[in-house]
Amino acid sequence: MLLAIDTSSLVLSCALAEKDRLISEWTVQRKLTHSEQLIPHLDNMMKDAGVSREEITAVACSLGPGSFTGLRIGLASIKMMACIWDVPLIGVDTLEALAWNMAGGEAYALPIMDAQRGNVYAALYSVHGSEVIKEEQETVISIDELTEKVSGLSVPVTALGEAADKYAGKLTEAGITLAPPAIRCCRAGSVAMAAWNKLEKGKTESPLTVTPNYIRRSEAEVQWELRHREK
Amino acid sequence: MLLAIDTSSLVLSCALAEKDRLISEWTVQRKLTHSEQLIPHLDNMMKDAGVSREEITAVACSLGPGSFTGLRIGLASIKMMACIWDVPLIGVDTLEALAWNMAGGEAYALPIMDAQRGNVYAALYSVHGSEVIKEEQETVISIDELTEKVSGLSVPVTALGEAADKYAGKLTEAGITLAPPAIRCCRAGSVAMAAWNKLEKGKTESPLTVTPNYIRRSEAEVQWELRHREK
Repeated sequence: MLLAIDTSSLVLSCALAEKDRLISEWTVQRKLTHSEQLIPHLDNMMKDAGVSREEITAVACSLGPGSFTGLRIGLASIKMMACIWDVPLIGVDTLEALAWNMAGGEAYALPIMDAQRGNVYAALYSVHGSEVIKEEQETVISIDELTEKVSGLSVPVTALGEAADKYAGKLTEAGITLAPPAIRCCRAGSVAMAAWNKLEKGKTESPLTVTPNYIRRSEAEVQWELRHREK
Repeated sequence: MLLAIDTSSLVLSCALAEKDRLISEWTVQRKLTHSEQLIPHLDNMMKDAGVSREEITAVACSLGPGSFTGLRIGLASIKMMACIWDVPLIGVDTLEALAWNMAGGEAYALPIMDAQRGNVYAALYSVHGSEVIKEEQETVISIDELTEKVSGLSVPVTALGEAADKYAGKLTEAGITLAPPAIRCCRAGSVAMAAWNKLEKGKTESPLTVTPNYIRRSEAEVQWELRHREK
């Protein structure tokens, strides 16, 4: 059984999943502190579902892009579990996991996460049943540039992810559909589905070397370099 | 805020949702006893999300079709909450709620629940973004008849619901796509989305008179009538 978590936004989500069955999933979007809540949530979920840690054969985590602090908390925790339990670790792109929220039918999914200062992390995926295919590479882009670019596409596109909440007005104005609320936010169940696919292809990460996918550098790093240069 | 539950199958799912935001959702598929687990789950979820019962402005429940016992437990509990908290009660068709699992893109959703003895409860919905439209009325049908009927359709159809697990082999053989695992099972988040739509149209139920939608009579009822007739 695979244990999956997503802490890349204000949403805290954890899941237990077999390859062909979701066993348990618990998602909370209430501005909880991931560092305080993640471990008690996992503990609670596993006890409740009657799943012992011996049953866990792999762990998975969304690697970003997203909140730098959230990603570090999630990845540090999952690395620890992979090492202590001696199970494979699978890293999943947060934007790809979001696209999995829309699996089953046919869609162009536009997952967007907040990159602050009017910018978003965005990618484009086409979804065909249980296939999720990256059509446009992830990037940092201003929300205005993104809506302009996307409204020029010839296919109907559905936005989801935390920045779809933040920029709901601008997206709707540009004729971009918003995924309904229960489809819109990060789900560890989707991380688990993407992770099972990667695990079957042997795409695992070393818990000693895997790093979050920030895409851009943190404001602190940029500022540090600027100050350093001035001296 | 709306509190929603789904106990129509072996899956136990509860959720808290604003109209435009999923606040919390907890789904467990581990053959738990709904009568023992439902209330502790709700209590746990609300405490965890920091939601007090004064914040709940409506309650919703899947009405069936599905497990007779599961439906009775869920509906009895939600009726009690609607009465004691004095909030509106919304009843949602279980098959419609399942179709909401696939909202966001474009799909023909074939939600199926187990009706025992080789039969399923089935309906057909078309999904367009945030619109979920009933195309074929719910019915009880043998799985063989259903696969024959559906494989004759000119559109690609995606099956989901607990009977999609049970009859995965037959459905796949008939060329019917299965929704991936995290999309396949009952979700209270989907009950909540369908319920918000109904609430806005004023479609609420009286907690004193609403009954589960069994579709067919229980085996016990049928047997009782047979025995009664013989006398």
